[in-house]
Amino acid sequence: MATRTESDAFGPIEVESSRYWGAQTQRSLQNFPIGGPESKMPLEIVKAFGVLKKCAAQYNMQQGKLDAKLGGALTAACDEILAGKFDDHFPLVIFQTGSGTQTNMNVNEVISNRAIEMLGGALGSKTPVHPNDHVNMGQSSNDSFPTAMHIAAVTQAMTVTLPGLKHLHAALAAKAEAFKNIIKIGRTHTQDATPMTLGQEFSGYAQQVAYGIARVEACLPALLRLALGGTAVGTGLSTTEGYDVEIAALIAKETGYPFVTAPNKFEALAAHDSVVEASGAMNTIACSLMKIANDIRFLGSGPRCGLGELSLPENEPGSSIMPGKVNPTQCEAITMVAAQVMGNHVAITVSGSQGHFELNVFKPVMIANLLVSMRLVGDSARCFADNCVAGIAANEARITAIMQTSLMLVTALNPHIGYDKASKVAKKAHKEGTTLKEAAVALGFLTPEQFDAWVRPESMVAPAPRKA
Amino acid sequence: MATRTESDAFGPIEVESSRYWGAQTQRSLQNFPIGGPESKMPLEIVKAFGVLKKCAAQYNMQQGKLDAKLGGALTAACDEILAGKFDDHFPLVIFQTGSGTQTNMNVNEVISNRAIEMLGGALGSKTPVHPNDHVNMGQSSNDSFPTAMHIAAVTQAMTVTLPGLKHLHAALAAKAEAFKNIIKIGRTHTQDATPMTLGQEFSGYAQQVAYGIARVEACLPALLRLALGGTAVGTGLSTTEGYDVEIAALIAKETGYPFVTAPNKFEALAAHDSVVEASGAMNTIACSLMKIANDIRFLGSGPRCGLGELSLPENEPGSSIMPGKVNPTQCEAITMVAAQVMGNHVAITVSGSQGHFELNVFKPVMIANLLVSMRLVGDSARCFADNCVAGIAANEARITAIMQTSLMLVTALNPHIGYDKASKVAKKAHKEGTTLKEAAVALGFLTPEQFDAWVRPESMVAPAPRKA
Amino acid sequence: MATRTESDAFGPIEVESSRYWGAQTQRSLQNFPIGGPESKMPLEIVKAFGVLKKCAAQYNMQQGKLDAKLGGALTAACDEILAGKFDDHFPLVIFQTGSGTQTNMNVNEVISNRAIEMLGGALGSKTPVHPNDHVNMGQSSNDSFPTAMHIAAVTQAMTVTLPGLKHLHAALAAKAEAFKNIIKIGRTHTQDATPMTLGQEFSGYAQQVAYGIARVEACLPALLRLALGGTAVGTGLSTTEGYDVEIAALIAKETGYPFVTAPNKFEALAAHDSVVEASGAMNTIACSLMKIANDIRFLGSGPRCGLGELSLPENEPGSSIMPGKVNPTQCEAITMVAAQVMGNHVAITVSGSQGHFELNVFKPVMIANLLVSMRLVGDSARCFADNCVAGIAANEARITAIMQTSLMLVTALNPHIGYDKASKVAKKAHKEGTTLKEAAVALGFLTPEQFDAWVRPESMVAPAPRKA
Amino acid sequence: MATRTESDAFGPIEVESSRYWGAQTQRSLQNFPIGGPESKMPLEIVKAFGVLKKCAAQYNMQQGKLDAKLGGALTAACDEILAGKFDDHFPLVIFQTGSGTQTNMNVNEVISNRAIEMLGGALGSKTPVHPNDHVNMGQSSNDSFPTAMHIAAVTQAMTVTLPGLKHLHAALAAKAEAFKNIIKIGRTHTQDATPMTLGQEFSGYAQQVAYGIARVEACLPALLRLALGGTAVGTGLSTTEGYDVEIAALIAKETGYPFVTAPNKFEALAAHDSVVEASGAMNTIACSLMKIANDIRFLGSGPRCGLGELSLPENEPGSSIMPGKVNPTQCEAITMVAAQVMGNHVAITVSGSQGHFELNVFKPVMIANLLVSMRLVGDSARCFADNCVAGIAANEARITAIMQTSLMLVTALNPHIGYDKASKVAKKAHKEGTTLKEAAVALGFLTPEQFDAWVRPESMVAPAPRKA
Repeated sequence: MATRTESDAFGPIEVESSRYWGAQTQRSLQNFPIGGPESKMPLEIVKAFGVLKKCAAQYNMQQGKLDAKLGGALTAACDEILAGKFDDHFPLVIFQTGSGTQTNMNVNEVISNRAIEMLGGALGSKTPVHPNDHVNMGQSSNDSFPTAMHIAAVTQAMTVTLPGLKHLHAALAAKAEAFKNIIKIGRTHTQDATPMTLGQEFSGYAQQVAYGIARVEACLPALLRLALGGTAVGTGLSTTEGYDVEIAALIAKETGYPFVTAPNKFEALAAHDSVVEASGAMNTIACSLMKIANDIRFLGSGPRCGLGELSLPENEPGSSIMPGKVNPTQCEAITMVAAQVMGNHVAITVSGSQGHFELNVFKPVMIANLLVSMRLVGDSARCFADNCVAGIAANEARITAIMQTSLMLVTALNPHIGYDKASKVAKKAHKEGTTLKEAAVALGFLTPEQFDAWVRPESMVAPAPRKA
Repeated sequence: MATRTESDAFGPIEVESSRYWGAQTQRSLQNFPIGGPESKMPLEIVKAFGVLKKCAAQYNMQQGKLDAKLGGALTAACDEILAGKFDDHFPLVIFQTGSGTQTNMNVNEVISNRAIEMLGGALGSKTPVHPNDHVNMGQSSNDSFPTAMHIAAVTQAMTVTLPGLKHLHAALAAKAEAFKNIIKIGRTHTQDATPMTLGQEFSGYAQQVAYGIARVEACLPALLRLALGGTAVGTGLSTTEGYDVEIAALIAKETGYPFVTAPNKFEALAAHDSVVEASGAMNTIACSLMKIANDIRFLGSGPRCGLGELSLPENEPGSSIMPGKVNPTQCEAITMVAAQVMGNHVAITVSGSQGHFELNVFKPVMIANLLVSMRLVGDSARCFADNCVAGIAANEARITAIMQTSLMLVTALNPHIGYDKASKVAKKAHKEGTTLKEAAVALGFLTPEQFDAWVRPESMVAPAPRKA
Repeated sequence: MATRTESDAFGPIEVESSRYWGAQTQRSLQNFPIGGPESKMPLEIVKAFGVLKKCAAQYNMQQGKLDAKLGGALTAACDEILAGKFDDHFPLVIFQTGSGTQTNMNVNEVISNRAIEMLGGALGSKTPVHPNDHVNMGQSSNDSFPTAMHIAAVTQAMTVTLPGLKHLHAALAAKAEAFKNIIKIGRTHTQDATPMTLGQEFSGYAQQVAYGIARVEACLPALLRLALGGTAVGTGLSTTEGYDVEIAALIAKETGYPFVTAPNKFEALAAHDSVVEASGAMNTIACSLMKIANDIRFLGSGPRCGLGELSLPENEPGSSIMPGKVNPTQCEAITMVAAQVMGNHVAITVSGSQGHFELNVFKPVMIANLLVSMRLVGDSARCFADNCVAGIAANEARITAIMQTSLMLVTALNPHIGYDKASKVAKKAHKEGTTLKEAAVALGFLTPEQFDAWVRPESMVAPAPRKA
Repeated sequence: MATRTESDAFGPIEVESSRYWGAQTQRSLQNFPIGGPESKMPLEIVKAFGVLKKCAAQYNMQQGKLDAKLGGALTAACDEILAGKFDDHFPLVIFQTGSGTQTNMNVNEVISNRAIEMLGGALGSKTPVHPNDHVNMGQSSNDSFPTAMHIAAVTQAMTVTLPGLKHLHAALAAKAEAFKNIIKIGRTHTQDATPMTLGQEFSGYAQQVAYGIARVEACLPALLRLALGGTAVGTGLSTTEGYDVEIAALIAKETGYPFVTAPNKFEALAAHDSVVEASGAMNTIACSLMKIANDIRFLGSGPRCGLGELSLPENEPGSSIMPGKVNPTQCEAITMVAAQVMGNHVAITVSGSQGHFELNVFKPVMIANLLVSMRLVGDSARCFADNCVAGIAANEARITAIMQTSLMLVTALNPHIGYDKASKVAKKAHKEGTTLKEAAVALGFLTPEQFDAWVRPESMVAPAPRKA
């Protein structure tokens, strides 16, 4: 393996020639052999750093602190990172320095080397673009990593989580509308209860997701507050007044999201309650998704020995021998997502409670878990909408048949034959395994025609109209 | 033990004469011997039911469905429950029916018996005030228990959680102001970093709590939505159009909190995402409290062998032999609260994900955990503010002494003697265990007077002023 | 309210005359107004301290350090505490000093005052039995509180958790035996699968509980190791060699459980991994209970519109109008227990990770949660066994009817008519909604008699016998 | 992109030519676009399947069910998978079918195609080696996936977790020995307490890890029980008596680990309590690691403004300007691991509680989280041992200096000058900020020589010797 020599304050170190990273990245690679590929720092963080470094260069050029030529190369390198050209050059894992310093340096080193290359220099020479002096100018890992965290989280929410949830909401709402006239048995305590429409049932699911969307939106303001400008401990030492406001504005412009500077930088470095809060929103949504998917798989259970009210789309072979055995695989995937999100939330919670003094040093594990949760929620919501909800069909004949066997319909007889007689009808039907109609007629309380006229499930699915 | 006979659909059952509850309560007592006193249904729920039953009676009287005399006795009984006169008559545990039906019946039975007593009837006779026909009129456990959950949660938030947090915020903000001129060493990675003021450090804590207050407030709108009017499965069967809106208005008037009817009753019965969300706010606040209290106990560690920057108030004997050993007991109490709240959040999350079909049947465990979390946060915030934060004193001499030994101040020499020489100063001081001043003078880089003029920590705690 | 004056190093303080506690208890009561009755230190801890103090007095008398008359009164007072005579004299909450010192002092004070009273002295005089000098002789809160934790946990496991689980195991095993010949449809992915016996299904539940019992037993050895003898930091300062071994032997004799001294006292004071481990066992059992109870309520769902394979016992009124609506309330209670135990486990985990230096100061919250979990598991297992499992009846007719409709039975035709024809049979039956038999006969692949001879579910519930 | 046509019961589908997978894998890839690379099914599961398929082929050849030539190619393909030659051919994510069926088919398809290739056939032809008929012979996903789970978990524990923990234990024990004569201040409640040796402090850490090793070992027996032979629902339908025992023996022989068949297959398919239990062991160990690493970073805090008792090895540049600022990055990595493991445990717990009927369908998410936790614990323990613990140096001068300032040493004067005078000495020293010696001499209670003779911290770190 061909290598080149990179160096840092610790001295020289060999790096594989084809890689753009430098000495500090290489050292971290060697010092933290923890967890393998599943534990890699999310690329979303790298991309967020790309935005940050680009905006910092713009600011520094505007202020006359950074030469335009160097700055131009630097921002061009950032754009390449944003375009995904260097995804393989960010090899570090989450389980590194808790401030994320090593990933910040990884970004600085790759940008520096790529800018050097563009300007005709030698990789590893730190000339003419130095990873610290130029790329990291005016920043500390302590304020830039949390800034990247927020940029990445807002971006993930806006591009994955919210679109996915909105897509699922639309799919559920469409079913609520499509199923609005299908009357079915309601179930409480998993037991037969009074009737409702299948549309009403789906409207509850749609409402849960609608609230979930609002929950994600509600945690955006906190994530839109950026730590940048706090530097090492939150005081802003070595920056100039106003820098924090201006850099936030540049980042807002670059991303299109309304980022602002955090009003208190001490809080912004030392605590990540806003990440815990956002994870809490994911956790609540996970509860919704678990509930909805559980209901759908139970309503779709069968084909013969379950509830059988719904037919779920068949996306892959189930049982080769048994037609109609459609495993609710999309429900299984999204409920596993829900469990994962709940677990990630605890990892984030524990980490968020553990900052000491001026710096929370659980930053990488917090943001990695949040980004995963946000992605899993968005991806699985979309996948579930497309591969399950959209294709759900109501087995109307069975829904009606089940509903009509229910003893709960007897309540409709109360106004006509009185509570006591209605109760006798139900008891007889239950004891003898007959329909209510058969029992009621056998008891001589009414005629078949009266039964049909009085027991009308469609009139049991809403409050009584207000009298004029 | 003297008893009287109560009865329900299952038949007669003996109840201790001095108790106001009836047959269904007694049966639940016998059927669920789980957990003992620590597991009792919170009284906050009983009180919330008191409000609900009172408002329902008012509504039913207004509608002409409930006789004024009966309704008067019924509401008087509710007022007595609200006044705490019957606290010993609600013996059931959380681990009962998951719909909370048995607690709803416990309330119905106590109110019925007390109203009967007021009207000169015989306890257990159900005449003239029947627990179901009159007290529970127009309600189902399925919509009234979640309504009581929300009434109790909003009340707890408004009367305990928010006042406690505001009290703590004021105490922290006062210290941030009082300590604003005390310059100290900052610490990142638990290691010495650049200086800051003690006031800045406390401003971060105050900011965390301020955000925490906003987090509680943000989850109130969802809790202000009431399920009442959904009856058994959410359809509102057996109610009249408009009932849901009107009963919510009555509850709002009675409590002074702006309750409204939930726009979708199916969601309101089948899922309690709003409880999960509120618990998420408590969980985030728990992270804040853990972080703040941990910092304060470490900053107050000593008296001789720790950091010793703060003196915490001494509220009880520490070590009899060792003066100055003040155990940070308030920090210990509030960090234990934080751990408990994080645990409660998982219990709530798991429960919230488990509703099936039209009814979530983890209602009691969800609301009990939320109410405990809300109370613990509020109580401990107030206690911590009064018994710890308010009495914190800064050990200024030690703070200054520590700060001045720090090698980090060398950064102030950069503009005057250059980075390389500054670095040599720091290395010499580190190696020889001297002060920076001694090292710098010994190296001949500056005079003692120059050192004092150039190394001014007070100029290191903010960004540089913007040039005119 | 009549009071008497008690005192400690902080000076005098008034205590209600009827209470046996002293100054330090009173101070804690006033300094920690957190959480109310639900947050009280469990009485199990008080009782464990009763054992500990009694054994310490025995040891001290044996060693000639404690006068026999004083020691006699002291041990008599301990016996009264163990008998529950002073349950109302331990008012402190969990959220106090994290070492539990204040509860240790509460015990010391009550024993001291009660022993003084027995010996004719004045309460609060500390003469002739001093709470520190005599009751706490040779102990530190730092080693005695964790000792009480372990005594309480082992006792809870032996008297509540294990008996409860064994009772549940017996109930499930009895059903596995009773149901061994009832053939039913198996369900995977909630979908129809190949047949099995109902007894086999229950044997899986019984196996889960059997393993659960083993899991509790496996965590006892760690809990049987006692910290006593470590004194303040684990060194055993102020004790004599061998004390730790001897006091553990006395406690073993007093309790009947094989306690031993912990081999490393530093670990025993600074960490409570053994409590986390025991909570982990409760957490695993919670998963088992959730799964079993969920299955049982779904199998018992109906009466008409659910799976309806099981009839659960009816313990209280369900629906007044609808016969046969038996809400699975015992399933609901035990699944809520499961959620609570999972939450408690996180509270314990967070607390267990947070010890600093020589002392974990989350002791009260850890042990309180463990004791609650242990009790909830034991209580709910017993309650579920008695009030649900024991009374479960199989609805054999329905079980058979459902099973026989299943298309999965077609696999039994493979050896006789080949896979392709079998597949055609299933597809036809699925498409036309008929039985397999009808479809097979209609297709002319076999006679009705052949079908009955070949499709024998009872031969599908075990591996094929080994050939001779 | 060149493709070939693969097919399954759903019909033909195009697969990239260079990939060995088949139709069902391709379908899953398209149907579950959830989570990206971080969510891929762990390769450890693929390898475990390699073992399983190889042993199944051996069994089937022994039984005469599988032609030796086909079986030979099949086992050769398995060996290649075990050697890592096809790591890129397992692209599926965790969030798929909850039974893991699609990963089972992925393995079947890759083995089939590779064996076909070896035998000169056409990829995708299923001839002469069919993915279902030959590779999956005698298996169901429902019993083979949980078998692969257990094989993978045991392997991970034996090859990563336990070696890592043993390595850490050795490093800590070596420090306990090396530091056994260094006397230091103990700290309780983060406050100064009585002295101890640094070796004693590290012995506590070593003990925690030793218990952790035992905890991992204790959960192996449950993981060594294999589900294979249960087939679809646990009955073993379509197998022959004895198969389960024999296949477990073959797997034991192949792996070298003592696998046995699970005594109850219904439990083994429907529940994964053994995975929850193993995760519980990881969770307990996470608590230990968090505590140990927290202590070490606080003891190493400084270099000037912290406790400064330990010097941690410097593995990468800390602050360029400040010599001696060594960030405790290894502590940060391992405490982040601890948080992650706690979170994973909740994901596993929730999943483990959610099996329904005969099959838990959260299998992939459960095993993926467990394998990550096991790897993170093992990797980080090793990394922490090598890159932190092994290089820890005691700052003896500072340790001694701090300890000697402690007022707690005054307890050593009690036997010589009495408690009251000793107390006066401590109070004077505390008030005036002097040493105990200065105060005691100034008070005229003793001479400097007496002080030195009497106050001997080395005699305060153990119980008093037993009298002869």
